[in-house]
Amino acid sequence: MSQETQKEEITVTQFLDAVASGSATPGGGSVSALAGCLGSALVEMVVNLTLGKKAYEAHQAELKKIREEVYSHRQSLVATIEKDIAAYQEVMKAYLLPKTSEEEKRKRKEEIQKALKKAADPPLFTAATSLKVMKLCQEALEKGNPNAASDAAVGALMADAALCGGVFNVLINLSALDDKKYVEKMKKELRRLQREGEEIKEQIMSLVNAKINSQ
Amino acid sequence: MSQETQKEEITVTQFLDAVASGSATPGGGSVSALAGCLGSALVEMVVNLTLGKKAYEAHQAELKKIREEVYSHRQSLVATIEKDIAAYQEVMKAYLLPKTSEEEKRKRKEEIQKALKKAADPPLFTAATSLKVMKLCQEALEKGNPNAASDAAVGALMADAALCGGVFNVLINLSALDDKKYVEKMKKELRRLQREGEEIKEQIMSLVNAKINSQ
Repeated sequence: MSQETQKEEITVTQFLDAVASGSATPGGGSVSALAGCLGSALVEMVVNLTLGKKAYEAHQAELKKIREEVYSHRQSLVATIEKDIAAYQEVMKAYLLPKTSEEEKRKRKEEIQKALKKAADPPLFTAATSLKVMKLCQEALEKGNPNAASDAAVGALMADAALCGGVFNVLINLSALDDKKYVEKMKKELRRLQREGEEIKEQIMSLVNAKINSQ
Repeated sequence: MSQETQKEEITVTQFLDAVASGSATPGGGSVSALAGCLGSALVEMVVNLTLGKKAYEAHQAELKKIREEVYSHRQSLVATIEKDIAAYQEVMKAYLLPKTSEEEKRKRKEEIQKALKKAADPPLFTAATSLKVMKLCQEALEKGNPNAASDAAVGALMADAALCGGVFNVLINLSALDDKKYVEKMKKELRRLQREGEEIKEQIMSLVNAKINSQ
């Protein structure tokens, strides 16, 4: 079995054990990406519990489009679980570089800064993609089978946790970065993602509560 | 391979596919339980990244106790993933009972009510246990390695999503129940769990932000 196949075939229990262990990866970054996958899968479920039912025939085309988009987000978020691990390992490798001579110190510092910037990419991707999943979740909830309202609710909760988790994992990388201009730009983007996420989450939760209470 | 073993060996991808599919289980209830497992695993990780390090020697005993407790919560939450599926299948079975004669109708209604009550137990367990995980997360964050602050943050986010997801899944069952006294009692308990959860989540997030900013 190639390493690639092995990684894809990891069981739920193995993943949980790997997170729980004392190694630095997989950690919060990978779990955030997985949370985004779980949110995506629940949005797909809501669509699948709606399609083919007479009562929702009017929205078939939009629902199919939602399913297609959210499935593609799930696939890219699955890949991000591994990307986060790889990027963080590069950071750790940089920290282990020799630091005896001045030249080595300079080089090491440069490599650390480079690796930290790169390690901010996977959690930023998780946050941005999970916001997209939340938007699709809202649409699926509005157009979908109300019997799946609690599944949509959990989908939104998972995507929201993924978004906020992604943000924290970018922030922890930024805290060690010297490039203040880059840090400010990133922080602005993170605030935007969080603000939008909070807004949509609130809308979804009111909608779910209305659907549950009307049943 | 026994069915039991097979279930334990489900891969992450298989689980995601099963959620995404058009079958009613696994759905939001099982995903909420899994979110609680992921939160637990991250708290264990924070402890494991702290134990054995000189700087945190004073808290070794408490940290080991946290790890033991949160590991046991993870195990019971893993079991809840399956329990939620089984309980919901009983609800669906009850809905399929014959309803031609008056006696059949009465019997079917009784069985549905019984199954719905039982199906509220796994998500209630998820919510209550995830609140415990959040409390342990807060303790681990206070006493643990600040380098693991973002892992603790994601742990709290996952446990919080599990708590809220559990609550929604209890609520959807309650909405179809006739026993108003039971419904009111349960709703009161859910509100308590949510309130406590919100409070702890807020405390954890301030603590994480302080730790990230001081790095």
